[in-house]
Amino acid sequence: MIPITSRRHPFVARCRALAAGREADLVLLDGPHLVGEALASGLPIVAAAIAPRMAGDPLCGKLAELAPEGAAIYQATAEVMEAASPARSPSGMVAIARVREAPPAVVLAGNLVVAAVGVQDPGNVGAIIRVADAAGATGFAATAGCADPLGWKALRGSMGSAFRVPLASGMSGDALVSAARAAGLEIIATCPAGGTDHDALDLTKPSLFLLGGEGPGLPADLIAAADARVRIPMRGPVESLNVAVATGILLFETRRQRKAMA
Amino acid sequence: MIPITSRRHPFVARCRALAAGREADLVLLDGPHLVGEALASGLPIVAAAIAPRMAGDPLCGKLAELAPEGAAIYQATAEVMEAASPARSPSGMVAIARVREAPPAVVLAGNLVVAAVGVQDPGNVGAIIRVADAAGATGFAATAGCADPLGWKALRGSMGSAFRVPLASGMSGDALVSAARAAGLEIIATCPAGGTDHDALDLTKPSLFLLGGEGPGLPADLIAAADARVRIPMRGPVESLNVAVATGILLFETRRQRKAMA
Repeated sequence: MIPITSRRHPFVARCRALAAGREADLVLLDGPHLVGEALASGLPIVAAAIAPRMAGDPLCGKLAELAPEGAAIYQATAEVMEAASPARSPSGMVAIARVREAPPAVVLAGNLVVAAVGVQDPGNVGAIIRVADAAGATGFAATAGCADPLGWKALRGSMGSAFRVPLASGMSGDALVSAARAAGLEIIATCPAGGTDHDALDLTKPSLFLLGGEGPGLPADLIAAADARVRIPMRGPVESLNVAVATGILLFETRRQRKAMA
Repeated sequence: MIPITSRRHPFVARCRALAAGREADLVLLDGPHLVGEALASGLPIVAAAIAPRMAGDPLCGKLAELAPEGAAIYQATAEVMEAASPARSPSGMVAIARVREAPPAVVLAGNLVVAAVGVQDPGNVGAIIRVADAAGATGFAATAGCADPLGWKALRGSMGSAFRVPLASGMSGDALVSAARAAGLEIIATCPAGGTDHDALDLTKPSLFLLGGEGPGLPADLIAAADARVRIPMRGPVESLNVAVATGILLFETRRQRKAMA
């Protein structure tokens, strides 16, 4: 392992730049759990740095073993880790990895696709991907205006699920709906009122679920363009649910219905 | 309204003390949404401060109208609000209110009670209360070792639901299980493996759901003491769900089963 003792090392500068936004297919991974998930998913690690307190961790051996030839594995001081890690409590490991989005045709090829529309909180985007993965989703899309699903906070929130579920970002809601319809998916829009209760709606057909951002929800034109509108019946005066909680309730009801049918 | 221009005003010191922990039945409310919910729930406001940018908001009039006689309503400068608000982006309104916990007998009197066990993140505790309220929960308990459900972060996360669902905190898990059983509730423990799938378990009886903290989950003795063990079937290699997401999936399946039975 190569020692880094200066916060001015180029690796630190790269981490800070990637914390502000990914560059091409390079993303920042913060924390040993996420680095371990990346290794388990076979993602190519470009570079990584390890804090002194992590030096004896089995993950370091795994990192040395599984990182591609030419990857730089650094042993950093606590001060360097503090500069390289974007988290408020610096985690013991950061890495730069290559992650490719999937082509939209791949994202839309399965029977349970989830789209986040205008979800601005990256932690919520990551949490949606995590529960979508748990429920067996076959694809995930974040429309333009969403937080980047491959940004470091969303990756942390997804706890590795973003490496497993085929995902794409940046399409407009309209383009996504058109492509999903062409792929044979039913478009199901979530809406706070006026839709059918989730447990009264037939969720057994291959579907794209549209989830809106907290606060504004889905834009009216997307709700109108959908094939079905679904709501989760809530006891008043509760106005809304966290978007990842709503995703979990909808997808596990979908899974229940499909299992019952099988 | 009384102006405050100094960060050394006693109101600021009280807010900072309450941000560290409630005192008797006094809690700190951060943000206009939460203050509005407190007013709507009829909670007595003891004191409140409003940022200059909020001065024209209808909520200020409502606050003046609904706050009890003797409540101090302050017009604070932006600098004072920054000192009084515990949030990183100071919200436009903070208030001190009286909130009483419910006696355990009241929390356990209904047919759908949720308990958080060892959930240390206050945002998660608040999110559990929010989705429990939405699903029609009749009570909520946080065992000793949980984040305070009436702490400012949990209150913010519950978005007012903590004012509506009867709640109690500080009991041991064992004492809670005994009291719930005496109240005629079935004890349902969530566990990552070894339980019955949530959609295959009969959830129609009056129940107490035990939710464990992220990471450790429920202690083994509580899992063993329960009448039933439930798991949410997840696609591997997903290891766990956010505890509020899991709560939502369980409670809405419970609600679906009970509705189907009615």
